[in-house]
Order: sequence, then structure tokens, then C-alpha cells
Amino acid sequence: MKHNNQPIGIFDSGLGGLTVLKELKNILPDESFIYFGDTAHLPYGIKSKKTIIKYSNQICKFLIKKKVKLIIVACNTASALAIETLEKYITIPIINVIDPCIQHAIQTTRKKTIGIIGTQATINSKAYEIKLNQLNNNLDITTQACPLFVPIIEEGLFSHQISKDICKLYLNKKQFLRIDVLILGCTHYPLLINIIKNYISKNIIIIDSANIVAIFVKKFLHENNLTTSNQNQQYIKYFLTDESIQFNKLASIFLREDSLDIEFIKL
Amino acid sequence: MKHNNQPIGIFDSGLGGLTVLKELKNILPDESFIYFGDTAHLPYGIKSKKTIIKYSNQICKFLIKKKVKLIIVACNTASALAIETLEKYITIPIINVIDPCIQHAIQTTRKKTIGIIGTQATINSKAYEIKLNQLNNNLDITTQACPLFVPIIEEGLFSHQISKDICKLYLNKKQFLRIDVLILGCTHYPLLINIIKNYISKNIIIIDSANIVAIFVKKFLHENNLTTSNQNQQYIKYFLTDESIQFNKLASIFLREDSLDIEFIKL
Repeated sequence: MKHNNQPIGIFDSGLGGLTVLKELKNILPDESFIYFGDTAHLPYGIKSKKTIIKYSNQICKFLIKKKVKLIIVACNTASALAIETLEKYITIPIINVIDPCIQHAIQTTRKKTIGIIGTQATINSKAYEIKLNQLNNNLDITTQACPLFVPIIEEGLFSHQISKDICKLYLNKKQFLRIDVLILGCTHYPLLINIIKNYISKNIIIIDSANIVAIFVKKFLHENNLTTSNQNQQYIKYFLTDESIQFNKLASIFLREDSLDIEFIKL
Repeated sequence: MKHNNQPIGIFDSGLGGLTVLKELKNILPDESFIYFGDTAHLPYGIKSKKTIIKYSNQICKFLIKKKVKLIIVACNTASALAIETLEKYITIPIINVIDPCIQHAIQTTRKKTIGIIGTQATINSKAYEIKLNQLNNNLDITTQACPLFVPIIEEGLFSHQISKDICKLYLNKKQFLRIDVLILGCTHYPLLINIIKNYISKNIIIIDSANIVAIFVKKFLHENNLTTSNQNQQYIKYFLTDESIQFNKLASIFLREDSLDIEFIKL
């Protein structure tokens, strides 16, 4: 069996992609990672398609220069808006966070009623609805943009009353009563999962892209002879486009690591 | 008396500078304006000094190409972090939103106790404290960063309970009990002024940069022979770096204009 010992590239606008990274580093303990956080342009979710494509393209080129073997677009907004363009121009494999979740959601829903929450840009793009309808055109789909979720997460308010009220503002709506599956269409949102659960019915199954994408990546590496032959040599290197005390602090807490190997760069 | 019929340039990351523009267009009904909203890089308040200088510099160059006679940095974060660099390289007059407010605050405070609220970047820069101390080193100064104010304003939650709770989170603190003047150190914040008032003592005088900067600009134009000789020909042209439905909607409501002349450009 062939191997590939290059690291895996992964990017997001800020903290969100760390939910994916956390799952990946646990499920693939021998693989190494280069994490790219575009903190100078954070947040992506309120920006236009053209702008998000531009940033995503620059990041992929940077990661390829760093000799990654695979790129994970750990940002749903970029996955929704930029993936088609990236797939045209980038010559190494790219995995987005939407496709694995869509497949999982269709396998999971029994009532064929799916809810999706995400940033304004992701929801406006209708990326989830279009892809879901391609797989099954008998679905009842409900969507809701939650533009304040990313700011409160980047501010570290994971369980504050304000975050609960913001959850209520977005989720306490009639249309959520009929769904049986809720897709967290933003990699930041798992950081709010405990309070999100309080504002939706207990019977609703929450689909968190982090876990599902990690399983998908593991399978992909095996099927494509891309697994590393290194053992116990995992390293994670972080590149950020802007200094961010907040990133450092929250990432350390979230990943349970004392210090992170962070470098600041200009795109 | 000499005149100058060129427009006035004004910039911010998003909606905030509109509070200044609104006062300016009322107080200077014959002057025309070019408003630049850097919505592709919004929000500035969580970004680093280097990044904010880069964006501010690019915007000033753009405004100069559009032949403005004067630039108003209607963003406190850019005023705090970029103004020294801009003043070195930009050859037309530049007015920032901090200096006029500082002078006004010192004239207003009786107990010599001043509070300042602003974005994380503005507060971290200590720009207000340094400038206040240069004018009077016997001041008791209290500062508070309010990172969620800009996102809730850009989301249009001007009087929502969530905004009230976020105000309480930041303002319901012991140190605010002793101040007699509060500087709104962000041009977005006047859009929350009605709820901010509820969380501070009634005796505190609020200094809103919009009004003070507008008066300062009027005086500056007169003293420097820069007033227009046009009459009743006011126009306002908007340039944004990213499409923003939210900007369009909220700006129209806020400025009470049916439609805005907006052009999207790349820097």
C-alpha cells in the first residue's frame, strides 16, 4: 500500500474550522495538519460570493505551496460559494464540508423534513437546498440564517444568557417544529451545540459537520492511498492572516493545548 | 472669499460612518459627499493595526483619485490606529473622529472622570487615553471594549432585548458609576444610543462623535476657504467594497432616503 506523508491543509475564516480539526486530529492521530485561519477577513458569512472566492483561492494557493496533500474547506460559506471555482483550478483533492453532511442528512431523516442553519451568505446561496434536491426532490426543507452566531462564538460567549436569547431569536420558530433533522451549516456552530439543543425539539437529530467530515476524510485517505506512514509524529501548524488574541485564547481552550504553533502571514 | 466645489470624502468599515454623514449633510446642506464603506473587510474592530493601516491607506488613495477636497476618517478604529500613518502620506486635509471628541470631553467633564467605549482594537490601542492625558494628566479614565455592538447594529437590532442585554453586559459595571462623561468611541454606537442611555446614570453626558465632528468640519471648511459655492446641489455617492443587502436597507432607513447611489468596487 502506498502512503503520502505530507500534511493535510484545512481552512476557515476563524475559529470555526477548529471543530473539524479537533475531530480530525483525534480520528487520524498520525496525520499532521496545516490550519489556515483568515482572521484578517473574518467573518465570511456576511460577504459576497466574489469576495469569498477571491479569499478562498488565495488560501488554497498558499496551502499548496506548503505542500499539503489534500485541502479541507472547513468553512460552510466558502464550501457553498467557492467550491466549484476551486475544483476547477486546484489540482490536489479538495473536500468541502457540505457534501458529506447532505448525504448523511438524507440517510438520517425519516420524515423527509430537514432544517438548515448557517450564515447569511450560506443560506442566501441555497447551496444546501440545491444539493439536497439533486439527491431527493421530495424533501421539505427549512432554512434560517443566524448572522450573530459567529460573532458571539468569536467573542467566547458559548453558554451565556445572551447566546441563549440569540438562539431563541433564530430557532424558536414554527417551521422548526416539523423537521426531524437539523444540519449545522457552519463549522462554528458546534461550539454552541449545548444551547442550540435547548431551543429545538429533543427528537431532532443534529448533524454536526465536524464529526461527519472527519470520518469522510479518513475514508478518502484510505481509498486514495494518501494515509501517512509516520507514527506518533502528529504536528499542527497554524497560519493566521491577522493577529488575534481571541483566536489564541479560545483555540487553546477548545483544543486543550497549552500553546499553539501560530505564524502570522499576509496573503 | 475662496471656495472649493469638490466633494468631501468620508469612510468607515460599514454603517457606522453614516451617523457622521447624516449630521454632515444636515449641517452642510450645500456640500456633496463621497461615502466609502469597506464592507468586504467589515468589521475593523477585531483586526490588527497593520491590517487597518493597509485598508485605510487604500481607501484614502481611492478617495483622492475621486478628487475629494478633504477626508473624514469616520471610523474610530481607523482613527485610533491609522491616522498617524495617513497624515504622513496623504497630502489633502484629514479629519479623524477622535480629536474633536477628546477636546469636547475635556471641556465637558466636571469631575474629571471620563468613560470611553469602543471596539476591541480601539480600546487596546489606548488612543483615547494617550490623547486625553496629553491634554490633562489629572483625569480618571475608564474604558470598555464592546465587540458585539457593531455586529448587532449591522444586523439591525437597534432596540431588541438582545441588544439591551449586550449593553448591560458591557455597561452595567462598577467603574461606570463614577464617570460624568461617556465618549461613544465608535461611529456605529449612536445607533444604539437610546438603549445605552438606559444602562448608565442619567447624569452622565454622552459624547457622540457624529455631531461634534460635523461641527468641527463646518468650522474647518470655513477657516480654510474650502466651502463650496454651489447651492442646493448636494449629492451623495456611495462606494462599497462588497455587496451588502443589509447596508442598502439600513442606510435607506437611517438616512431617510428611498434609494442610494451605490457602486461596488474592488480596492
